[in-house]
Amino acid sequence: MKIVIDAMGGDHAPQNIIAGVVEALNEYKVPVVLVGIQGQIETELKKHAYAKHLVEIIHAPEVISMDDPASASIRQKKNSSITVGIGLLKKPGYDAFISAGNTGAVVAASTIFLGMIPGVDRPGIGCVIPTLEKFSFMIDVGANTAAKPEHLLQYAKMAKVYANLVLDVPKPRVGLLNIGAEECKGTGLEKEAHKMLEEKEPDFIGNVEANEIYNGKAHCIVCDGYVGNVALKVSEGLMESVGELLKREIKKNPVAILGALLLKSSLKEAKRSIDYSEYGGAPLLGVDGLVLISHGRSSPKAIKNAIRAAIREVDHNILAKIKEEASK
Amino acid sequence: MKIVIDAMGGDHAPQNIIAGVVEALNEYKVPVVLVGIQGQIETELKKHAYAKHLVEIIHAPEVISMDDPASASIRQKKNSSITVGIGLLKKPGYDAFISAGNTGAVVAASTIFLGMIPGVDRPGIGCVIPTLEKFSFMIDVGANTAAKPEHLLQYAKMAKVYANLVLDVPKPRVGLLNIGAEECKGTGLEKEAHKMLEEKEPDFIGNVEANEIYNGKAHCIVCDGYVGNVALKVSEGLMESVGELLKREIKKNPVAILGALLLKSSLKEAKRSIDYSEYGGAPLLGVDGLVLISHGRSSPKAIKNAIRAAIREVDHNILAKIKEEASK
Repeated sequence: MKIVIDAMGGDHAPQNIIAGVVEALNEYKVPVVLVGIQGQIETELKKHAYAKHLVEIIHAPEVISMDDPASASIRQKKNSSITVGIGLLKKPGYDAFISAGNTGAVVAASTIFLGMIPGVDRPGIGCVIPTLEKFSFMIDVGANTAAKPEHLLQYAKMAKVYANLVLDVPKPRVGLLNIGAEECKGTGLEKEAHKMLEEKEPDFIGNVEANEIYNGKAHCIVCDGYVGNVALKVSEGLMESVGELLKREIKKNPVAILGALLLKSSLKEAKRSIDYSEYGGAPLLGVDGLVLISHGRSSPKAIKNAIRAAIREVDHNILAKIKEEASK
Repeated sequence: MKIVIDAMGGDHAPQNIIAGVVEALNEYKVPVVLVGIQGQIETELKKHAYAKHLVEIIHAPEVISMDDPASASIRQKKNSSITVGIGLLKKPGYDAFISAGNTGAVVAASTIFLGMIPGVDRPGIGCVIPTLEKFSFMIDVGANTAAKPEHLLQYAKMAKVYANLVLDVPKPRVGLLNIGAEECKGTGLEKEAHKMLEEKEPDFIGNVEANEIYNGKAHCIVCDGYVGNVALKVSEGLMESVGELLKREIKKNPVAILGALLLKSSLKEAKRSIDYSEYGGAPLLGVDGLVLISHGRSSPKAIKNAIRAAIREVDHNILAKIKEEASK
C-alpha cells in the first residue's frame, strides 16, 4: 500500500502537510509518496525524525493555488502536485490520494484523469459528521452544485458502502436533506429525489431536516452540493463564533475562569467529538480511484487522520465495493 | 397600536402563546388581540393575572395545523386563526400579526390577503442572527425556495431598512450567501445575483460564505429560501447536539460538574446571545402588512419577545420605510 499526498495543498503547506505525514509515518508505518516541489519538501522533512525508507518524493514543479479556477488550472498546470498526484493512482501500487489544496481542482482532475465509475454520473464529496449516536455521512458537500435526482440516488448507494465499511454502521439508514418532513416539501430536485429514493432505495427513511443532521436520525444524508456545502460551513462558522463568545464571557468573570479550568477536559472531549480534524479527510466518491479532500486549514493532526482514513478505505477495499453497488 | 396574535399557532398553543402574551402585557402595556377558539383562550387566560382592558378576543373556530398543506388550508379554512388574524391587518388600528403556527400557511395567507408591496415580487422571511459584532439579518430563510436574482436584490433593499431601523445598524453592509468568495462561484442564481447586486446595490460587499454568517462580515445576508432555511436549521440542530454532548461529558466527571457550576452564568450569557427566542419573531417582508413568524416550539419568552419586536416595527414605521425603498 502507498498513500500519495499533495505536499503543496492547503493554507499551511508544505509545513502542516509534512508534519502530519511524519506523525502518520510514526504511528501507522505506512509508505507515503509526497508530491510537490522537491526542494521545499526536503527542507521540511529535515525538521523531523521519521523512517526515511517509507517516504518517496515525486517532483511536481507547479502549484495550483487555492484561488486558481478549477478546470483551467488543471489544463494549464499539467505538472502541478494535484495533477501529477492523481495521475499516479492510474499506476499499480499507488492506492489513494490526499489533498488539502484547491477542492475544485481536485474534483476536476479526479473526474478527468480517473473517470467516473460505471453507474455514477457525478462525483460527490462525502463528509463524516459527528452525531449524538456516533457518525453520519453527508454527501454531497460541494462537488456537484447542480444535482439531479438520479445523482442523489447514486450518492445514497455509495454512502451506504462507506458508512457500512468505514464507519462500521451495520445497516445504514438513508435520509434526504430537505426543509420539511413531508414528501411534498422542497424544490423540484427534492420532490423528484424523494420519489426515486422511495422507489429504489430500500434503506430510505424519508426527509431529514437540517436540524436533524447532528442527531443521528439518518446515517447517510444525501443532498445537492451547494446546500451540503452551506450546511457544513455554517456549522464550522457557528462553532468558531460560539467558542469565541464563550471565551469572551469567561474572561469577564474570575469565578468562570476557575470553572473553565475545571471543565477543561470535558470541553476538550466535547470539542474532539465535533472536530472535523478528528476525521481529517472527506472522500470524493464516484471517481475511479480513492481520493480524499482535506480542509484548506488542516492541522498536522487533520492530515495524519486523513492518512488514517485513507488506510481504512484501502484496507476495506471500498472502491471495489462501491463499484459493485453502483452497477446494480 | 394593537398587536394581533394567533393564539392557536405552534406546538404548545394556546398555553405558551397566552403565557407569553401575559408576560408582554405586564411588561409593555400594549393592547393585544387574541385570535382563535374563544373558549380555549379564555380558559388559558384565567390562569394568569393581567390587565384585562388591554385584551380583545376574536373568535376563529378553525385551526390550521402544523402539517396542513399551506395554500389548500388557506382556501379551505376561511375561519382559521391565521386567515382571520391576517385579515384584521386590513382594518385600521390593527398593526401587526404574530403567529407561531404553520409557516407556509402564514406566508400564503399574507401574500393572498395583504398583497405584495410595489417593487417586491416575492415575500421573504428575515431572521435576526446573533453575531460576534451584535446582529445580522438573513433573508430569505424559507418563504421562497425558487428565488430569482431580482428577488435577492429586493430582499437586500428591505433588509437594509430593517437592519437600520430595528437593529440599529447605521450603515448596513449587504452580502450574498455563496459557497466561495469569488464572483464566479455558486449556481446560476448566485452568479446572476452577484452581478445585479454589484450594479444596483451600493452597500453590496460581495459574497459571504456560510462560515461567515456568524462573524458579522455582513449585516444583511441575502439568499434563496431553501438554502437560508437549511443554514438556520442546521445551526439550531448543532447547538442542541453540542449542548447535549457537553452535558454528557460533564456528567462523567465530578470536577467538571463543579466547573460547570462555576461557569454557569457565563454559559447562560453565551447561550442568551445565540438563543433564537431572545429575538422571538422573524419578520415576513414584502407583503403589505407587518407579519412576524415565531418558531413552532416557541416558549412564552419567545412570544413575549416577538411582541416586543412587533412593537419596535410599528414604532419605527418600518412598513412605510420599506415601501419607500422598494419603490426606488
